[in-house]
Amino acid sequence: MRDLMAITARPEVISLAGGLPDTSTFPPSSFAAHMTRIAQESSAQALQYGPTEGFDRTKECIRALMAAEGMDPDPDDIIVTTGGQQAIDLVCKTLIDPGDVVVCEGPTYPGAVPVFCSYEADTRHVEMDDDGMRIDLLESLLDDLATEGRRPKFIYTVPSFHNPAGVTLSAERRRRLVEIARERELLVVEDNPYGLLRFEGETLPPLYQLDGGDYVIYLGTFSKVLSPGIRLGWCVAPPPVMDKIVLGKQAADLCTSTLTQYFVAEHFAEGRWREYIDSLCGIYRSRRDAMLAALERHFPPQAEWTEPAGGLFVWATLPDYIDTSDLLAKALRENVAFVPGAAAHVDGSGSSSMRLNFSGSDEDEIREGIRRIGDVISEQVELYEALTMPAASSASRPGAAGSGAGRAPDRPGDVVPMPRRDQR
Amino acid sequence: MRDLMAITARPEVISLAGGLPDTSTFPPSSFAAHMTRIAQESSAQALQYGPTEGFDRTKECIRALMAAEGMDPDPDDIIVTTGGQQAIDLVCKTLIDPGDVVVCEGPTYPGAVPVFCSYEADTRHVEMDDDGMRIDLLESLLDDLATEGRRPKFIYTVPSFHNPAGVTLSAERRRRLVEIARERELLVVEDNPYGLLRFEGETLPPLYQLDGGDYVIYLGTFSKVLSPGIRLGWCVAPPPVMDKIVLGKQAADLCTSTLTQYFVAEHFAEGRWREYIDSLCGIYRSRRDAMLAALERHFPPQAEWTEPAGGLFVWATLPDYIDTSDLLAKALRENVAFVPGAAAHVDGSGSSSMRLNFSGSDEDEIREGIRRIGDVISEQVELYEALTMPAASSASRPGAAGSGAGRAPDRPGDVVPMPRRDQR
Repeated sequence: MRDLMAITARPEVISLAGGLPDTSTFPPSSFAAHMTRIAQESSAQALQYGPTEGFDRTKECIRALMAAEGMDPDPDDIIVTTGGQQAIDLVCKTLIDPGDVVVCEGPTYPGAVPVFCSYEADTRHVEMDDDGMRIDLLESLLDDLATEGRRPKFIYTVPSFHNPAGVTLSAERRRRLVEIARERELLVVEDNPYGLLRFEGETLPPLYQLDGGDYVIYLGTFSKVLSPGIRLGWCVAPPPVMDKIVLGKQAADLCTSTLTQYFVAEHFAEGRWREYIDSLCGIYRSRRDAMLAALERHFPPQAEWTEPAGGLFVWATLPDYIDTSDLLAKALRENVAFVPGAAAHVDGSGSSSMRLNFSGSDEDEIREGIRRIGDVISEQVELYEALTMPAASSASRPGAAGSGAGRAPDRPGDVVPMPRRDQR
Repeated sequence: MRDLMAITARPEVISLAGGLPDTSTFPPSSFAAHMTRIAQESSAQALQYGPTEGFDRTKECIRALMAAEGMDPDPDDIIVTTGGQQAIDLVCKTLIDPGDVVVCEGPTYPGAVPVFCSYEADTRHVEMDDDGMRIDLLESLLDDLATEGRRPKFIYTVPSFHNPAGVTLSAERRRRLVEIARERELLVVEDNPYGLLRFEGETLPPLYQLDGGDYVIYLGTFSKVLSPGIRLGWCVAPPPVMDKIVLGKQAADLCTSTLTQYFVAEHFAEGRWREYIDSLCGIYRSRRDAMLAALERHFPPQAEWTEPAGGLFVWATLPDYIDTSDLLAKALRENVAFVPGAAAHVDGSGSSSMRLNFSGSDEDEIREGIRRIGDVISEQVELYEALTMPAASSASRPGAAGSGAGRAPDRPGDVVPMPRRDQR
């Protein structure tokens, strides 16, 4: 894996693998101004340790972001974490005992998979469709578990612009999920890194808003609306859970960076944070459009993909006979990368799917990247058809036939997402 | 605990509790210059994700710091972590299975205690004297364990300017400890946050240098030689261990802050980092002297304390009948704080000792803080004597008698160190 990460960091590689926002859009002049102000007014404090829970000023920025989606958490229920990833880790550390059931979407966030595994959770996937997690299947699963006398420790979900699936949980399913949590007294962990990155359509209420914070633990991050390099995320949880999370945080890294918290406070004090998010939405919308058009043009007719209304990712599913982990090796020889789908399941399924990122590359790179991947896929399709169709010659053309039927986009690859390309 | 942390953050409280370096000595003009340069030359990169292992440039800064103590690690053996605390957490996560024996000093770093406990280690303390860990007692413990067929997963040690004990492992014991590791094929985890903060006397070789990195895993941090607010530490480990640590790091927080890594790189590029450490040594030396003089003046004759040749901490031990956790409650009413000794043991012993920090307060604050603590101790001594000496009246004077004999400084309190005061 470290080798793969090194490869995708090479400048000649077009990486559609990472979950990278485009940080080149942040004005260097604002960066310099924020930092100069911190240096002049609070150098010593910015370089010092901070409180384990995070600074009150950071919590106000978090409350502003959450208010933009209709939420109003108590500051005492918030802890600032070292990125959203640490929020997931701390919640799992706090709640999971080995063997505990955790329910999540299938596919699920690839960065959550190693966390669930490291705490030895018994992870169960629930299939998704274009409206997100299938709540009917969730209820069946909960019933089956109840029959065995088991209850999940929590249901982990990314309801908006899912990573990696790109789909969004419908309003009706959101209400039903929150009802189920109340009826069955189950915790829901809502991971919402992309909620404000909506390109079109109506805003949907976060589960936290619908529930009021009784059964929903909320995870957020500044990574996708400002910068991942500052490593700032957060968790909102009720007091008994929060007390344990605070202890876990102390053991994990004492406190979150003071310097980067001060940077965020300056960014929000400047008053243009919403504008900046809107500018990102405009850029990513065009890139998504470029990716969808390129997929239409360069992927064979046997492939299917999701059409996200926001966020960073498209999820593409190829014929069953193509293993995207093998495909990645071939793609890397063509200097293009993606995340194979198995990484988003605990059981290695999803092996014919792939996650494609459209936020971290410009439109030309996206078109060229998709073209290269499309070529590699077409070669595989051709090869398969040559081997399986009795009358076919090795000269059969890509897209000429369709033996591998498309599959529902419910399975993903085998590599953790690679947030690199940073060295380009 | 969160209440206690809030109390010590109040401006009227003199906190000798935290392990805070004096970040007010870092020139704001350098801070501004470094950040302006980053904004101008690499804004987009500094705000982006970074490699899980950390940037090569950061590793070169780490190698410069380690070279200053005679070490020469391979860059591939280094991972940059979110502070030194995360380095401890990742090593424990990688190596400890529930029930595994971990050997450490008694007292040990209070921040390591909750980590050992969270991974369910069977933690064994080895007493210290003025020359650090007693290697004869270590060997007896290892023999006893061997009789039971058990081997420790590792020996955790802070050989230089121990936190909290303030003592330093002698050259002879260092050599012997490394020999023992080789003879018995045991890993040693050397935690060295303070090695370059020597006020006087000869530099001693780190265990990593003596061993060459075969059996010694090395942990370091920029917190005490530059800034804790940037949350940058590191771990040096051989490849098979490092591979697991990298996976653990990905699950924990994906990567360390790019922004703060760029800041460190600028600081080292400026070429004055050694000068800055020397300036800290001068300031801390005077503060240590002020603390030792104040202890002599204000603590009762029944108390004992260590005399550190570097680092940040003095360890004071009071008569047995004084519980420093109770004493802290009284001290807080006088607006002064320290870390009660029980926090530095897994078994709650050390209840008559306390950790006193001299790096985070100026000399006047130190004198006043020690005076207040001394007064509270004297009241306790007086009360004890009034209750236990048949003829004594309630008017007996502080320091007038000495029933509680001094104890060896081998036991510590019940609160994790409180790195706050940042809000002052």
